[in-house]
Amino acid sequence: MNAEIIAIGSELLTPSRQDTNSLFLTEKLNQLGVEVVFKTVVGDNRRHLVSAARAAVSRADILIFMGGLGPTEDDLTREAVAEALDLELHRDPELLAKLEQRFATRKMTMSPNNEKQADILAGATALPNANGTAPGQWLSGKYDGKEKIIMLLPGPPHELKALFEEQCLDRLRARVPPQFIATRVLKVAMMPESQCDARVAPIYKCYPDVQTTILAGAGEIQLHLRGHAESLETAQQRVEELAGKIEDELDDFVFSRNGESLEQIVSYFLQMRNLNLAVAESCTGGMLAERITSISGSSRYFLGGAIVYSNELKTQFAGVPPELIAKHGAVSREVAVALAEGVRERCQANLGLAVTGIAGPTGGTPDKPVGLVLHALAGEGKTEVIERNFPGDRKRIRWFATQQALDMVRRRLM
Amino acid sequence: MNAEIIAIGSELLTPSRQDTNSLFLTEKLNQLGVEVVFKTVVGDNRRHLVSAARAAVSRADILIFMGGLGPTEDDLTREAVAEALDLELHRDPELLAKLEQRFATRKMTMSPNNEKQADILAGATALPNANGTAPGQWLSGKYDGKEKIIMLLPGPPHELKALFEEQCLDRLRARVPPQFIATRVLKVAMMPESQCDARVAPIYKCYPDVQTTILAGAGEIQLHLRGHAESLETAQQRVEELAGKIEDELDDFVFSRNGESLEQIVSYFLQMRNLNLAVAESCTGGMLAERITSISGSSRYFLGGAIVYSNELKTQFAGVPPELIAKHGAVSREVAVALAEGVRERCQANLGLAVTGIAGPTGGTPDKPVGLVLHALAGEGKTEVIERNFPGDRKRIRWFATQQALDMVRRRLM
Repeated sequence: MNAEIIAIGSELLTPSRQDTNSLFLTEKLNQLGVEVVFKTVVGDNRRHLVSAARAAVSRADILIFMGGLGPTEDDLTREAVAEALDLELHRDPELLAKLEQRFATRKMTMSPNNEKQADILAGATALPNANGTAPGQWLSGKYDGKEKIIMLLPGPPHELKALFEEQCLDRLRARVPPQFIATRVLKVAMMPESQCDARVAPIYKCYPDVQTTILAGAGEIQLHLRGHAESLETAQQRVEELAGKIEDELDDFVFSRNGESLEQIVSYFLQMRNLNLAVAESCTGGMLAERITSISGSSRYFLGGAIVYSNELKTQFAGVPPELIAKHGAVSREVAVALAEGVRERCQANLGLAVTGIAGPTGGTPDKPVGLVLHALAGEGKTEVIERNFPGDRKRIRWFATQQALDMVRRRLM
Repeated sequence: MNAEIIAIGSELLTPSRQDTNSLFLTEKLNQLGVEVVFKTVVGDNRRHLVSAARAAVSRADILIFMGGLGPTEDDLTREAVAEALDLELHRDPELLAKLEQRFATRKMTMSPNNEKQADILAGATALPNANGTAPGQWLSGKYDGKEKIIMLLPGPPHELKALFEEQCLDRLRARVPPQFIATRVLKVAMMPESQCDARVAPIYKCYPDVQTTILAGAGEIQLHLRGHAESLETAQQRVEELAGKIEDELDDFVFSRNGESLEQIVSYFLQMRNLNLAVAESCTGGMLAERITSISGSSRYFLGGAIVYSNELKTQFAGVPPELIAKHGAVSREVAVALAEGVRERCQANLGLAVTGIAGPTGGTPDKPVGLVLHALAGEGKTEVIERNFPGDRKRIRWFATQQALDMVRRRLM
């Protein structure tokens, strides 16, 4: 079975607000084996709401409407769903009494606009809302010629979550055929997306029962695998089998098989090998250290380092000879190596990691264009350098550079 | 005119990912007077995509499809839109040549799956994508019996943003009836949201024609003002009048009246005063320097500094006496001052800025709980310290600390 989630509210169509309830609902639905196939956001406009409801009923088995159940003029969900499904809406005397009682308990007078919160769709069950005035509604039956489950839930997240967990989950579980979903996220470092897909597509195509989604970012590709089956064992077995084959194909480009970030993996490796690290950053300006220290407990393996934005500080903090900078330029293999070795020595670290490059948008030359970045890793007896030309804007080039630098540490310790 | 935004990608229907491009697009469309009336999220499934495209064409004037333009098997947007609108799809030789050239320039072989990125809808104009392989498409004409504008844009945010701004905005502006909207974004540093709202609500309530939205983040509140009127002058005059009154009320807590970031404002002030800056970061671990260097041209006023995660490096890079650390602890006013003064001296900077604190989740004590952060700013003849207890998780505490540190520089130079 599949579901569509319809979030209602004009504020959700502004540049500054976003529906987040659907993330919670998606997680709960997925756990029951229900897949969310559409999410729709629609404003407080009856015609638009009816259109959204009609589209949803034509294409999903489970429809969850969120919001628009309050007492105001622009709360129109009940009316719109009634119109779209061609159902009567009647005022429930019991619900009305409860509403009046709720106001009386709080010693407030109930204004007449509140009464419409007692309106209920023909055939629906009211779902009491412990945290607000608007009750939810549960409806199941044949609509548009097919069996459908329809829920109307309040929009405020704390009301929606409590109501869904307490009153919808069990009802859903009883109606949904038992299904099991297994998932896995593989992450791949520093490989072009098309190359990655060309290598893995022939593999995942043999697993039509496992949905494979490829997400590409700067220097990182994520492969999300998601398998359905009639038992958890089968679902897991299929996903693990596919994951294993993809890992065999991509080999050491795969850095994570449980969704961990690259900085988390570097953290594991450094701790496992009982090594520590220091950095010298020019063009990344602190981003590399920020990523490393975003991990709680990073003080166990990260000493710190230097942000050597000016040439003077390259000398002051990492001992790079001014003549070397004068001869080769600050963005050069020679200076990258000297930075890595220098910061390693100054910090008495096991590993020294350095980045120098041209993040742009200004500062590029024909010889040394924007996007040129040198990465160096110094360790016991050996310093490696990697030169790259990264595409994109300043932010993206800097991110790419930190990704490449972290990947050098990972590969060294693997 | 109104618009529907359709975000495509199965990953956007999982509990862990959300479309954010639509927020950017909504802002740009609103500025043209175009309202977003529906947002739809749909997975990489041809039948679902066709259904979403059909629903959209039946109810909105402008359709923006985002994502699903890449080279992989599950990139199906072109095919689905062609099917929904009953249009031919043909391979464009010129686009194909450009694709091949792009790969050749990077000395990479183009795998055959890339070719479909040269497929174009009958009647559409290809929109070159400077940041990726997949070009966008622009289509306008009569569909479903009405004039429609249809855009196919790539999903990665940096590609979408650049492509939309450079190639869609002018085309849209030429087609949309002129409307007059004035906006202003005021940004406020280091003030609690409830206090801010209590002070400004009585003011903005007197301007019902200006929509005021308050967004609160860590150490920053944004007030978005948006006025519609029949002439640009009236809209601007109302927005400016309200903005002026809010600024009078909040005084020097307002750091920006044109939407600039705090690091941008600090950049202006440092350049205006012809001063430079160095930093010493403990708990923020590079985040402060990263924010400063995110501004292009920051090398004019930022020298660099030290990430002094370990106590040894506090001594090595900022000359903090080990006895001082032993006596007061690394998270103390005394060490914060010594770090700021020490890094200022070592870097020969006009200003030395330091942060030391407990970002958590571990490392707190009853005396020095998680969230305690000391910020110090050393300059000619004077060093200031600010002690704060920030709420939230590691990420939020670190962000708060960088915000407070930057705000100290702003206030010193104001």
